[in-house]
Amino acid sequence: MIEAKKRKIIIDCDPGHDDAIAILLAAGNKNIELVGITTVAGNAELEKTTLNALKVCEIAGIRDVPVLRGNGQPLIRKRETAPDIHGDSGMDGPVLPEPTKKVEDEHAVDFIIRKVLDSDGDITLVPVGPLTNIAMAMRREPAILSKIQEIVIMGGGTFGNWTPAAEFNIFVDADAAKVVFESGVPITMMGLDLTHQALATEEVSQRIAEINNPAGKFVSDLLIYFRKTYLEVFGFEHPPVHDVCCVAYCIDPTVVETKKLRVDIETKGELTYGMTLVDVHGVTGKEPNVNVALTLDNQKFWDMVVDALKNLGN
Amino acid sequence: MIEAKKRKIIIDCDPGHDDAIAILLAAGNKNIELVGITTVAGNAELEKTTLNALKVCEIAGIRDVPVLRGNGQPLIRKRETAPDIHGDSGMDGPVLPEPTKKVEDEHAVDFIIRKVLDSDGDITLVPVGPLTNIAMAMRREPAILSKIQEIVIMGGGTFGNWTPAAEFNIFVDADAAKVVFESGVPITMMGLDLTHQALATEEVSQRIAEINNPAGKFVSDLLIYFRKTYLEVFGFEHPPVHDVCCVAYCIDPTVVETKKLRVDIETKGELTYGMTLVDVHGVTGKEPNVNVALTLDNQKFWDMVVDALKNLGN
Amino acid sequence: MIEAKKRKIIIDCDPGHDDAIAILLAAGNKNIELVGITTVAGNAELEKTTLNALKVCEIAGIRDVPVLRGNGQPLIRKRETAPDIHGDSGMDGPVLPEPTKKVEDEHAVDFIIRKVLDSDGDITLVPVGPLTNIAMAMRREPAILSKIQEIVIMGGGTFGNWTPAAEFNIFVDADAAKVVFESGVPITMMGLDLTHQALATEEVSQRIAEINNPAGKFVSDLLIYFRKTYLEVFGFEHPPVHDVCCVAYCIDPTVVETKKLRVDIETKGELTYGMTLVDVHGVTGKEPNVNVALTLDNQKFWDMVVDALKNLGN
Amino acid sequence: MIEAKKRKIIIDCDPGHDDAIAILLAAGNKNIELVGITTVAGNAELEKTTLNALKVCEIAGIRDVPVLRGNGQPLIRKRETAPDIHGDSGMDGPVLPEPTKKVEDEHAVDFIIRKVLDSDGDITLVPVGPLTNIAMAMRREPAILSKIQEIVIMGGGTFGNWTPAAEFNIFVDADAAKVVFESGVPITMMGLDLTHQALATEEVSQRIAEINNPAGKFVSDLLIYFRKTYLEVFGFEHPPVHDVCCVAYCIDPTVVETKKLRVDIETKGELTYGMTLVDVHGVTGKEPNVNVALTLDNQKFWDMVVDALKNLGN
Repeated sequence: MIEAKKRKIIIDCDPGHDDAIAILLAAGNKNIELVGITTVAGNAELEKTTLNALKVCEIAGIRDVPVLRGNGQPLIRKRETAPDIHGDSGMDGPVLPEPTKKVEDEHAVDFIIRKVLDSDGDITLVPVGPLTNIAMAMRREPAILSKIQEIVIMGGGTFGNWTPAAEFNIFVDADAAKVVFESGVPITMMGLDLTHQALATEEVSQRIAEINNPAGKFVSDLLIYFRKTYLEVFGFEHPPVHDVCCVAYCIDPTVVETKKLRVDIETKGELTYGMTLVDVHGVTGKEPNVNVALTLDNQKFWDMVVDALKNLGN
Repeated sequence: MIEAKKRKIIIDCDPGHDDAIAILLAAGNKNIELVGITTVAGNAELEKTTLNALKVCEIAGIRDVPVLRGNGQPLIRKRETAPDIHGDSGMDGPVLPEPTKKVEDEHAVDFIIRKVLDSDGDITLVPVGPLTNIAMAMRREPAILSKIQEIVIMGGGTFGNWTPAAEFNIFVDADAAKVVFESGVPITMMGLDLTHQALATEEVSQRIAEINNPAGKFVSDLLIYFRKTYLEVFGFEHPPVHDVCCVAYCIDPTVVETKKLRVDIETKGELTYGMTLVDVHGVTGKEPNVNVALTLDNQKFWDMVVDALKNLGN
Repeated sequence: MIEAKKRKIIIDCDPGHDDAIAILLAAGNKNIELVGITTVAGNAELEKTTLNALKVCEIAGIRDVPVLRGNGQPLIRKRETAPDIHGDSGMDGPVLPEPTKKVEDEHAVDFIIRKVLDSDGDITLVPVGPLTNIAMAMRREPAILSKIQEIVIMGGGTFGNWTPAAEFNIFVDADAAKVVFESGVPITMMGLDLTHQALATEEVSQRIAEINNPAGKFVSDLLIYFRKTYLEVFGFEHPPVHDVCCVAYCIDPTVVETKKLRVDIETKGELTYGMTLVDVHGVTGKEPNVNVALTLDNQKFWDMVVDALKNLGN
Repeated sequence: MIEAKKRKIIIDCDPGHDDAIAILLAAGNKNIELVGITTVAGNAELEKTTLNALKVCEIAGIRDVPVLRGNGQPLIRKRETAPDIHGDSGMDGPVLPEPTKKVEDEHAVDFIIRKVLDSDGDITLVPVGPLTNIAMAMRREPAILSKIQEIVIMGGGTFGNWTPAAEFNIFVDADAAKVVFESGVPITMMGLDLTHQALATEEVSQRIAEINNPAGKFVSDLLIYFRKTYLEVFGFEHPPVHDVCCVAYCIDPTVVETKKLRVDIETKGELTYGMTLVDVHGVTGKEPNVNVALTLDNQKFWDMVVDALKNLGN
């Protein structure tokens, strides 16, 4: 992608440790044009995730990209957050000053609708939290459906983490996920099958710790905290930086191998609410509708992250 | 109600034959201040219900009340309309010219939020179609919850009409209904138990036919069509003017007898999606949450309607 | 039915106050040939309902009719009983000695299968408790399906009593009900719409109290207890003797007016498990499958009951 | 297990290619006392699976072990079979004469109940088809619950094969599975995680082809057919002999590594009916209830199978 046209993305997020790194990767990579950062309740309540997004902008030196507040609760269900994983602030670990950057007045859903309608069909949505804002935008203004270039989702997988069946982002608002997955818009899904390959090993942590700038220091601190909670809650040796995979894919799709598969969302089950049914062996006979990422090029992935963090110091 | 403060209402509707009469009743009664008319998909698609609302405004002589377009599909489900009952236009029967009145640019959901937040807590929402707009407003801006005076809903009942379990308005967007019924806002429900008492008998039709003005002629024509489809589809001798009950109640609550009961919404059932479970005998042990209208004062009701229609000619 | 062939019935029951009266009606009417009494858990646990059935046989002078123990719990769900209505014994009120009659060794399900297969297709099943035994028999030996003359069920209705949606017998084992209602066997359903017309008013109670024999005394005592609990739990002035309607219909079908309607069973709903969806207005477009009893000839009904009780003294 | 007491098992099966091999393994291993073979509908209709069981007995030289016919359809749902995998006969491939052995008159469910109640608590049930018979026995006679030594189930897993969520045996009768998994009886589950390790590779097939007796020839022919359908339907290079794992585990539990985990059955989902939710990371906080087999000792497993087949020739 030698000086190609930059890829325009809106990151819809709930920072969140891995969300933060995803934003930094977007900010530090020259192939990405970050159109906006929209926030949603997920890893923590909306006020917290919005504040965290603003703090990450400060660290990243993001000044001209608007940050917009979205929905504070799912379409229908009660809100559920993940303080055991992300701490009470939603981004525990690093100590950061109050940000000087302010959130916009416009609602995240209106921003998404406006930017997509005004575009040449070249905006990619990158939701790395619950899909509430995206579904709300689709329902409020169906005209966006044919103008979204692609939706690159962190969520789902062939197995769960929040319940035995469901991944956290989809579980929190599976009703929204159903709207998005049935929308007909091209979807690439970074599910747990992929993101559990994006582990911040000790070697990786070491590479990041050696980056001599505030972004590097910040990510280092994030990973120390994230490592601890992932070990305690899930018994993982190394924490997976789920959300970062989405941005990495936008920068260079060859960082993952994908397969077009049928994916459906369960919203009725007693024990399976929020499950993404990935039809790996084609047993449903339904048309494939999602580009499912299955294998990560680890070397390429972490090189991208490290490069971006280094760039942020310049 | 001797020259009391007028009751401020926003009618959220999908005209619709009975919706039209509900608007006329509001317009023709001096105790009502109609703050706005918002539209939603339901009896017909959104463009049709919005156009119908504008046409009704012309007939009613409504000039300064804004009409605002809302959501064209339910929160999650596919849209379902009722052409067998309301015809292809959503308001078949009367022949009307294109309206001169225009719909506003503002979205219905934003209008509802703005008006409620700007109010002194004295606005009543009167949704007589699917509850999509109301639920969307509640999710987008939870601050409205404590400022809505009351929600007077046409929907539900202890039995169904669209399925053996569910009434049409709730069935079309039961997910939205769940949001609204669990919101904690005071709710009065005009379900089928009540609205099937509001029958436009031949005597009633005769009274209306004798009103010598365009509004009377319009309602007369509506009822001729409505009578025909209600007979064909449901085997009813006389058509029930469901939505009108809500406005009548806002004008004078004594037009109905109500009972505070527990009402819950089924959204998971295989055959019961959209059912309103009305706990008539208190067997669930749950706290009553809805003021359920059970008995209509027929004389008072139709007098109100006839008076309003007459007023519209002056 | 002037000296017609007697109607052969198996009563499948969970006595139960109204079950007891149903058995007495069968025993005291000359048009009924009681082939067997099978028991099931329902109003109380299986050991209690079986013991109660034996006691009723003593009162009724039933000697040669076998009593057989069936299933002590539903097909899948946990057992649920109704001590608030029927007392701890399942038949509280009358004081009765231990019965001399014994339960058979054969299992109720095997008995039903054997009797039906050995018959000329002239056996009617009269389940007045949960449908567990009947469903089990159908699944164990599908060959019975084409040989059952009719199933006359007490259960369901267009409204519920145990939950706002579901009647007790169907609710306790809706999975079994689904099997039975989808079996293709001719079904007549005495639901709450009908049985709430079979009220033991004070006049009725008086007529029964005046019958000068043990059966009359026993039923009198049952009704005193039943009246009390129905008032306390459901706020009913007079208790409905649900199960008796089924036997009355077997004696003389003209005691009720019925209508062939579609009835389906909800087994998935969050709040509606065990609902019988009765398609009164034909909105589902599905083929009618159940003969639904809607109106009771009260005079004829109670005359039958009183006559039978009188006969039992002779 | 040097001349230890033989392990008493009842194989409940729906042969089925892998069922057949499981029976042969039991018959050919001296540490197993095969108490009975019960049949159920599953891979094919009941008459076919019963006939196949009798044929396998002939090949295996099983004479004194009774074969008993069980349920021909699930507890509640419509029957579903797998002709694409097992052929029209349920055991296509080998050509076999009509068996001389006859099925017993006793029903499989009654046999299971009788044998367990008469035992010293030392009978293991080995259901390798849908769990209908086992659930029926548990519901008909709850007294067996405390006397079953263990249930070794082929079914379920952390992923599905019949749907993206559900494995075939559990899917066919998930209601029965729910009864069994919630029964409190010790359960060891050989799910797809384990059985997909039991692949009949070419090397394995070669070893079996070289066994110079009818059992070896029969299994060879079975595997040729099974290999073909598994490739066509699922894209597997080598077919997994699921059911055999259960018998191997009964012979020598060290052939698998297991972990005690929570397993629940989904029976309500729209897309997830029949899923076994295996709580691998303990996120539900529920008490582990199933011994889940996770790793197979392949060498030991196939040695066992080959030895047993050789023994059957003597």
